[in-house]
Amino acid sequence: MRRLDIPATAQQLQAFIRETLREAGFECVVVALSGGLDSSTATALATGALGPQKVFVLSLPYQEWHADARRNARLLLNSLHIPPAQITEVDIAPVVQAFTEALRLHTQGLPDQPANEEGRQVRLGNLMARARMAILFDQAKSLGALVLGTENKTEHWLGYYTRFGDEASDIEPLRNLYKTEVYRLAEHLGLPQAILSARPSAGLWPGQTDEGQFGFSYPQADEILYGINEAGLSIQELEARGVHASSVQAVLSWVEKMAFKSRLPYLAPEPVVLEG
Amino acid sequence: MRRLDIPATAQQLQAFIRETLREAGFECVVVALSGGLDSSTATALATGALGPQKVFVLSLPYQEWHADARRNARLLLNSLHIPPAQITEVDIAPVVQAFTEALRLHTQGLPDQPANEEGRQVRLGNLMARARMAILFDQAKSLGALVLGTENKTEHWLGYYTRFGDEASDIEPLRNLYKTEVYRLAEHLGLPQAILSARPSAGLWPGQTDEGQFGFSYPQADEILYGINEAGLSIQELEARGVHASSVQAVLSWVEKMAFKSRLPYLAPEPVVLEG
Repeated sequence: MRRLDIPATAQQLQAFIRETLREAGFECVVVALSGGLDSSTATALATGALGPQKVFVLSLPYQEWHADARRNARLLLNSLHIPPAQITEVDIAPVVQAFTEALRLHTQGLPDQPANEEGRQVRLGNLMARARMAILFDQAKSLGALVLGTENKTEHWLGYYTRFGDEASDIEPLRNLYKTEVYRLAEHLGLPQAILSARPSAGLWPGQTDEGQFGFSYPQADEILYGINEAGLSIQELEARGVHASSVQAVLSWVEKMAFKSRLPYLAPEPVVLEG
Repeated sequence: MRRLDIPATAQQLQAFIRETLREAGFECVVVALSGGLDSSTATALATGALGPQKVFVLSLPYQEWHADARRNARLLLNSLHIPPAQITEVDIAPVVQAFTEALRLHTQGLPDQPANEEGRQVRLGNLMARARMAILFDQAKSLGALVLGTENKTEHWLGYYTRFGDEASDIEPLRNLYKTEVYRLAEHLGLPQAILSARPSAGLWPGQTDEGQFGFSYPQADEILYGINEAGLSIQELEARGVHASSVQAVLSWVEKMAFKSRLPYLAPEPVVLEG
């Protein structure tokens, strides 16, 4: 794995945020803060870059899910001195319910249907991510702010996002950092310990963890993704460095399964033009 | 303006749809059909390519707006012999209302506030487009179908779309055709006359027309966009061909105003790596 100069990277990313906003003609960002590592780190970076008066924060919970993460978000916002008037909470449950009723995708009250349970969870998670996107971009329009994205390089490679949902943004400060590098950046920025020690979760359901869904850990994923995609290592070379063959296979098959996302949309060819 | 071989282009685009689905491992498409020119043409193309059994259609009206377009959509679906079981109508009004209540963006019952009226309409239009996107992609997931996009080259250049809304799709058959070329393709495909003669509208509010919003016509826009972007003509050369200078300015200023959409998102630079 590469070794980053974390303090220099933090400064570079803060300059990137400042300069991008100036060039784009904006003064403020708005971020959907879950209280997880990525959105907390992006929020802290933007606050360092722009000052707390220029960072608007949306908390977009679904009912009472993830109360721990929301508590952690409040710890962070206090430590960053973001004024309460810049923090808005919108429970997305009524919006998600309107979607599920329109789609007759009932979320409760029906007998369990194990065969379809995973598909239903995925559809519900996608609706939640897209409801958040629509609210976030509405608020950006209303505030005249850019949407601060929170995607990291590991998630991007693994396709671990909802298209037109949590991946949708205007500016992506973390997109070239692997998850373990975001963690080190977060430590450097002094994020609350509760955020650093929480298990990463996309919040798809209560108790869900990313690594539980992957079947491999983020440090494993980062070593394998960096080794193969950037350091040009072969699978044999990775194994010689102590990475288990089964982990390599698991990561590569996840990447393969999700690769369609970055190929989309398919664009029509140029039409047939008459000569002369 | 270039002259297309419309029958050959129709065949080429149908082959593109068939081959893309085969390569991507899908059999069906799902399309949000408003009854306007673009979605009707895309639906007819896909039906020609795949057969009516493989085309699923969503009608996603907002209340009773655009009843004419919905009537035209029914005419089209009858003429294409798409089975009724493959056609689903979902009124998006309850979803949009859930959004506007969550955002306290009241859509009616308040005294008119002219200063904010345009901003409110834009925000409402964006929420409608994104609600449709979320429903369309949910149904694609549920059906195991690809989302058939309906964007044309004119709209794309003019930025006349909602990011993560109506522009979101999996396959874009019309993306390299200007609006006037889509019209000729629609004539060739035998679309109902009512669709061909309707004034183009993004459906942002009752009575809204695209050309009314632009301040120039689609034929003007196409001649100017093609002339400058593809034929390498100068503004002077366009004027020598009889295009009014004021139209050129209007089109170019619209393109300039919307160019930010294709620049987004801004991605962070590579981080600072320690040597050795």
